[in-house]
Amino acid sequence: MDVELINPFLSATLNVLSTMAQTKVTPGKPELKKDNHTFGAVTGIIGMAGDHIGGNLIISFEEAAILAIVNRMLGEDNKIITEGVVDAVGEITNIICGGAKSIFSEQGLSIGMATPMMLLGKGVELNQLSKKQLITIPLSTPEGKFVIETNLTRLK
Amino acid sequence: MDVELINPFLSATLNVLSTMAQTKVTPGKPELKKDNHTFGAVTGIIGMAGDHIGGNLIISFEEAAILAIVNRMLGEDNKIITEGVVDAVGEITNIICGGAKSIFSEQGLSIGMATPMMLLGKGVELNQLSKKQLITIPLSTPEGKFVIETNLTRLK
Repeated sequence: MDVELINPFLSATLNVLSTMAQTKVTPGKPELKKDNHTFGAVTGIIGMAGDHIGGNLIISFEEAAILAIVNRMLGEDNKIITEGVVDAVGEITNIICGGAKSIFSEQGLSIGMATPMMLLGKGVELNQLSKKQLITIPLSTPEGKFVIETNLTRLK
Repeated sequence: MDVELINPFLSATLNVLSTMAQTKVTPGKPELKKDNHTFGAVTGIIGMAGDHIGGNLIISFEEAAILAIVNRMLGEDNKIITEGVVDAVGEITNIICGGAKSIFSEQGLSIGMATPMMLLGKGVELNQLSKKQLITIPLSTPEGKFVIETNLTRLK
């Protein structure tokens, strides 16, 4: 597990959710993902491609967690996952990946970002072709859980 | 609809499936995708990021179409979508995107490719954050249909 390739996503997530959504996030221990199914009700996905590095970032939220985050972020009172909440997941994924990209850039690693996608449904089978398994980081908010997953890898 | 950003994917698809899987593919007319659900039973997805361009490539196959393609490509006799078939969808998506990347490169457009993902299930809701809608190209093989979808866009 290449901690240098995981910590930027974790730092960016804590920073973004604290400043944009006043949400205190408690991270758990990163581990290899044991299955290939989406963790939560809504999942943001973004591809990353650099000269010497590539992979995907996946952020998957339980419904209660994302509703609380988006409601605080936008001053709304969504009680179900609306189209606006789904778009917000894409924006959050984009902003977190952008934050990680800045940290990588300070370390001399240049990463390009594709455009975000948002997948609906818990337990949807989403496989990675990359031989390297996903690392998953469990995170808790007061209202529910989410995970950050990535297979970002230095290319040979 | 920016035809210059669609044709390289179409050319690469026809070329890859003809040479690697001896499959004659008949393309239909590209159109704006009207819904946000996966077309087929297995879907390959890859993010693309360049200096002035970004988006995703989605290739989604009906079960009969991908079984025939993979069986010809690998000399196998799969009757259901196995893990090997799912991996082959990722490889095919990667090779087609790589072929399109070469064509873009000849046109002076540099594109980086993230690593492929493979999504299982027809009708799974997969949204794009990008304001630009997906273009979908319907394609037919003797055994079944598939689609190529992309929202690759020149960035301002």
